This record gives sequence, C-alpha cells and structure tokens, in this order.
Amino acid sequence: MADDSFWSQALADAESADAADPLAGFRSRFRLPPGLIYLDGNSLGPAPHAALRAIADAAEREWAANLIASWNTAGWFELPTRLGDLIAPVIGAGAGEVVVSDTTTINVHKALHAGLSLRPGRSVVVAESGSFPTDIYAAQGLGAGVTLRLEGVDAPAIEQLIDESVAVVLVNQVDYRSGRRRDIAALTARVHAAGAVVIWDLCHSAGVMEVGLGAAGVDLAVGCTYKYLNGGPGSPAFVFCARRHQAKVAQPLAGWWGHARPFAFEPGFEPAPDIRRFLCGTQPILSLRGLEAGLAIAAEADLAAVRAKSVGLTGRFIALADAALGPLGVGLGSPRDPEARGSQVALTHPQGYAVVQALIARGVVGDFREPDVMRFGFAPLYLRHADVVRAARTLEQVLAARAWDDARYHARASVT
Amino acid sequence: MADDSFWSQALADAESADAADPLAGFRSRFRLPPGLIYLDGNSLGPAPHAALRAIADAAEREWAANLIASWNTAGWFELPTRLGDLIAPVIGAGAGEVVVSDTTTINVHKALHAGLSLRPGRSVVVAESGSFPTDIYAAQGLGAGVTLRLEGVDAPAIEQLIDESVAVVLVNQVDYRSGRRRDIAALTARVHAAGAVVIWDLCHSAGVMEVGLGAAGVDLAVGCTYKYLNGGPGSPAFVFCARRHQAKVAQPLAGWWGHARPFAFEPGFEPAPDIRRFLCGTQPILSLRGLEAGLAIAAEADLAAVRAKSVGLTGRFIALADAALGPLGVGLGSPRDPEARGSQVALTHPQGYAVVQALIARGVVGDFREPDVMRFGFAPLYLRHADVVRAARTLEQVLAARAWDDARYHARASVT
Repeated sequence: MADDSFWSQALADAESADAADPLAGFRSRFRLPPGLIYLDGNSLGPAPHAALRAIADAAEREWAANLIASWNTAGWFELPTRLGDLIAPVIGAGAGEVVVSDTTTINVHKALHAGLSLRPGRSVVVAESGSFPTDIYAAQGLGAGVTLRLEGVDAPAIEQLIDESVAVVLVNQVDYRSGRRRDIAALTARVHAAGAVVIWDLCHSAGVMEVGLGAAGVDLAVGCTYKYLNGGPGSPAFVFCARRHQAKVAQPLAGWWGHARPFAFEPGFEPAPDIRRFLCGTQPILSLRGLEAGLAIAAEADLAAVRAKSVGLTGRFIALADAALGPLGVGLGSPRDPEARGSQVALTHPQGYAVVQALIARGVVGDFREPDVMRFGFAPLYLRHADVVRAARTLEQVLAARAWDDARYHARASVT
Repeated sequence: MADDSFWSQALADAESADAADPLAGFRSRFRLPPGLIYLDGNSLGPAPHAALRAIADAAEREWAANLIASWNTAGWFELPTRLGDLIAPVIGAGAGEVVVSDTTTINVHKALHAGLSLRPGRSVVVAESGSFPTDIYAAQGLGAGVTLRLEGVDAPAIEQLIDESVAVVLVNQVDYRSGRRRDIAALTARVHAAGAVVIWDLCHSAGVMEVGLGAAGVDLAVGCTYKYLNGGPGSPAFVFCARRHQAKVAQPLAGWWGHARPFAFEPGFEPAPDIRRFLCGTQPILSLRGLEAGLAIAAEADLAAVRAKSVGLTGRFIALADAALGPLGVGLGSPRDPEARGSQVALTHPQGYAVVQALIARGVVGDFREPDVMRFGFAPLYLRHADVVRAARTLEQVLAARAWDDARYHARASVT
C-alpha cells in the first residue's frame, strides 16, 4: 500500500487544483448526497436543484392546477424543439438541428433509416460489436435487405469496413465500457470519402467534451440526456440531423408530432420540412420538464474548460491507480493517451464486481461491466480533484482488505 | 332559454343521482381546481393526489438521494411490466399481456408490424380515415409493400373492407371526435372470420368501460394512459399482445429492454419470449412513476359501475342539450344510442371554437375539434351528475349571450 505521506501529498496536489478550478462554482447547482463520491454520472447524472424545482412545478402547477391549458400556456408542445436548441451548442450543432424525443434506441432506429434513405443504392451498415448492444440490436432490426458489418467481428478496426458499398456507419464517440474516444472529424471524413453517411452515438460524450458535429460535417447523431447532461432517470433522448439533409431524409416512425401541420389532423402524412420530422408521438412531459435544468447548465459551461478538467480528473485517477493500485492487481482498461479517452476510466480486477459493491458500501459509487471492468465516470461539473484522490484511496483500502471475501458483496442485483 | 324551474328540477334530479352514486368516493382521490368543471379528461386527466406524492418521491428520494441505486431499490427497470399488469384487469387482459412503454404512436408501429408478422402471406392493412390521424400515419409508414384500405375512403363501413387478403385491421373502440363506440367482440369475430389480426386502439375507452380484450379474443391493442387513466401529461402508453401470440410475433424496434437477457449485453438480438419483446429502450422514469397512482385507482374501480355512470352522465348531458340547447342552434354529433357511445359527447355549433373558449372562461373546460365539434368528456371517477347540469346551463348562457361576438374567444392557440 502507498503510505500516508503519498496520499497526503496527493490530496494536497488535488486541493490546489480544485482551488484553481474555473468550473468549481457549478458543483453547487447539484443536489449531491452528503459524503458520497459519485463516479457514476456516466450512467445517471445527479439532480440539479433547478430540475427538482421544475419537476414540482410541472406536476403541481402545470398538470394539477392548469390541466389541459398547459399545452399552450406552459409550452409543452414546443419542448422537443426548445430543449433540442439547448443541446445544440453543447454538441456543436445549430439551432433547428436537434430535437429531444423518445429514447436513444428509438432514435437510433430513426437515424439508421434516415441514413439509408440518403443512400438509396446502398444497403450495408457498419457498426461496432463492442458498442452498447442496443445500437447493434437496432441495426439488426433493419431487416433482411440490409447487410451488417461489425467492427470486432468482420475486421479489427472500423476503418477497414468502410468502402463504396456502405450506406451508413453507426459509431460511438466514446465507448461505454473502455472509455475509448474516437476522433469525430477524422472518422467522419473517412466515411464521407467512401460516399457513406455517419451516425454518431454521443451517449458517453455529450456534455463532457467538445463534440463539434457541425465542424466535422456530421450527418446524423443520437444521444441520451440522463448521463452527463443530468436530465433525470430515463429522460428523453436527442437526435441530430444536419440541416442540409432535413428536407430529404425519411424515417418510418411517422406520427402526428412529425407532421408538417400536426393540428390540421389531416389524413395523409406529410413530414415536417425540418428537424421535426424526427418526432413521432406525444412526449412524457414530466420527464422533459425535469431535463431542462441539466441542459441549461451544460449549455452554460465552457466546453473547453470542461474537457480540460475531465482530462485532469481521469489522468489523476490513472496516475494514482498506477502508483497505488497496480501492485494490488488492478489493471487499466482505458486508453492511457488522454486524446483517446473519454471522461471515464475502466479499471480491471478479477473480483471487480465485489470490489465495486464494497466501494459503494464505503460511499464511492462506480459500476461494473462484465467480465472484470470497474467503471468510473468523472463529471467535471460536480466532481473535485480531491474526490478523485479519496476515491482512489478508498479503492486501495478495499483491495488491501480483500473486501471481496465478504459474501454480501457478491449478491447480483438486476441492474449495475 | 329553458326557465329557472327547468334547471332547478334538473339540478335536483342530478343531486339525487349523486347521492346514490357508488363511485362518489373516488372524487376525493383527485386534485381538482376549485370551481372548475373539467370535461376534458378525455384529453388530459387530472392529477391523483397519490400521483403528485409519487412524482415528488421519485424526484427527491429515488433520483436525487439514491441515484443509480434506484434502478434496483426502486424497481425502475420493472415499471413497464408492473404497470402493464396494473392496466391488464382494466382492459380485460391477463397478467403478462400488457407493458407500458414509449408512446401510443410508437406502439401502433410495433403492433402493426407484429400483426403483419402473424400473417406473412398477406399485406393489406385496414384502418379508419376518421381515426385520430397518428394511427393512419403509422400505417402509411409501413412502406411500399403494404396496401392500406381506409374506412371512409375505400368504403363507408370498415366491415366492407375486411376480406381474405387482409392481414391487419387497426380500429378504435371509441372515435376520438364523435365518441362513436364499436362492439369489440363482434368486430373482432368478423376480423378473425377473414383470417386477419385485429389491433384495437383503446385511447378513448380504457378506464371508462369494460373492454374485454381477453373475452373477445383480441390479438393486439394499444392505448394511452393520460386520458381516462389519469397518468399525467404524456405519460407512456401501453401495448397488449395476447399470450398465444407472444412467442411468435416480431416487431422491428429491437432494443436492449426487449432482449431475452438485457443485462447479458450480448451482441446478437434475441427477443424476450414474452410481452417484453414489445419493449425497446430506457423509459422516462418520472413520467412512469407519475402514472402508477392513476392506474391503481382505475384498477380499484368497478368497471360495470363506471360504465353505468358514464352512460348516465352522457345521457343526462344529451337530454339537457336536446331540451335547452337545440333551440340555440346546437346539434348532436355523437350517437344517441348509449350502446354506440363512449364516455364523451360531441355537440356541434357553427361558432364552436369561440363557444368552447367562452365556456372555459366561465370555468367549464371542454375542447374543440374542426370543423364544428365541441367535445365534452365525462369521466365517472371524479365528475358528478350535478356538474353535468351546471355545464349544460353554462353552455346555454354562453349561447344565449352570443358570447362568440367577443373577439378574444377567436384567438387560436396551438393545441386545443
């Protein structure tokens, strides 16, 4: 084990970094349980105080008191476009290029069909076998006319799968398990060089780095809002479509919210001429209203500062893991190069599941992914450098004490 | 105008009916704005007190305090099946035949594909041109391989469109505009006699009448939860699939919540063997938590008593309209036969839009549907017979005063 002076010095260094942190003020915008070090914001972000107020207002005033009138007076019908415009600057998109609606999975379906509609002569879709599986399931749901090529199955690198037969490439900016980060501009250019369309899944990147969809000329993108955008459990997802494609893309999930004139109640479907053609049916208003505060905070933060702090937090954690945890059997499952890394760190350990449970019992929340990955997310808007040191030291204590010998840390819950 | 003694007698009759109402106790379960007569519960039901408590608890305790742990400790992942089982008895389904997820429109898409998958040799879909249009849009979204036949376009009655070439019939139990009610058992038998599959849209019937899906042998059904089930604005919708079909139906919106083993994170999609194959992605938890109270109330009410009161309320309103409003230019747009009528009444008037606005200004909330339909919903769990009389009298006063001469009642809002 590292000695006390090592940890004292590490903590002092971290506290210096916290004192100079330009983002330190954002922490007070969140309700954080006292004493908890929450490194699972890459799964479910914490509640902004303003979100809790908005949810209460939406329930008590908008629903209970004002009832049906709130569709007009509270602007419920405009929430998907208004919230989309709040996300747009966070991912480098323009106003009118993003809507918030439905789930990430549903939006992947829409985006895949939309991508295929832009390349009618082609029928190959490329994706990643290591992706969060719902992306692959959506691609498999496209049916018999589509050929799916998977990185990790059909070739080791996605670039090797992209040729002139490819219609759509569906790829994650940050891998949900390892935290590997791809270069959006470079891969988008590679896809476009083959005449294909790219869909970026931003679930593990939106809100913690500059995404730059517009600058890279990205065609389509999807992402969730309950991780680094702190929108609340299962808050609706977003879908981006570049303005240049909007008048011609087609997606089959037609519904009245995506009609050119939704309140004319016309019997024939005519898609809206703009991003609203990605809308479908009536959205869950309470969950949308809970989401707005998190998006407003993200839109307010300087993304270059967010990314710099993210790199600082993950780099600090890796350095401490190298120094103090490596001797205790912990490996690094994430890229060491910060350019190739998102805002999370995967550590490996054969008893990873039980170790994570023991950590949670000690107030440090991460999560576990099979077979041996302990996953820690570092959200720059509410975490401090000192939290990183305390988390690493707690992990060292758990490992040194062989906490996995305690049987209660092995009981599997349904969701981790 | 009817004279004072007419209205006094009408009110006395109504108060007698209220005194004998076996459902009277349910009214106190809802937060109802004082003085308001709310006849728009067929668009957005009012808030159950327990729903407001559940939403606050879900936000403050489950999300903000317990964070990611709530996926296990609060049972978030099981909400779609647990809430589905709460709806099941309300629509005559069995446990394990209903899930709550996504929107009505998305569920219509799933159900249409599921129906087609059960009749692989057929490609004709029958629907209603007078349906709430999102159902038709979904059918139009099925693509080039499917032929759509519409009641009201291709034939006057849906029965005339059903033959041996038909795969799926998509039909509403209660028409959203006129309130016309169809006989589920008879039409289901007619569809089955042609070897086709039926999908019932229950948006305007679930919660206010016995639906009897199981007894009628219905194949598939969808419905929303924010009308007579009082789930809150945009609360997620439900989809029913008869148990006998579950192992063989296919729907293309594959996602991790619909996988046989969602937490194994397998790269190949294998649909769950049961109703969960209609699930797709991560659901909006706050909106789901707000929905539970309304479903619990509906499951608790005796549906025969609910239907009897519903018929009583709408019948009383029609009788008053006949007597007092007919001379003022109001017509009836709903069936006079209670068997052929849902829980709403459509009255027609050339100045209908302005009349509805003037009514709302006087504390009686209905809504308007083009071109001339004033739509009033009568939800038996919180409306009193006396409310019906007061609403009719207020409407008489608005009409007698030619309130539509007031320009402010003509300003169109985006949603009515």
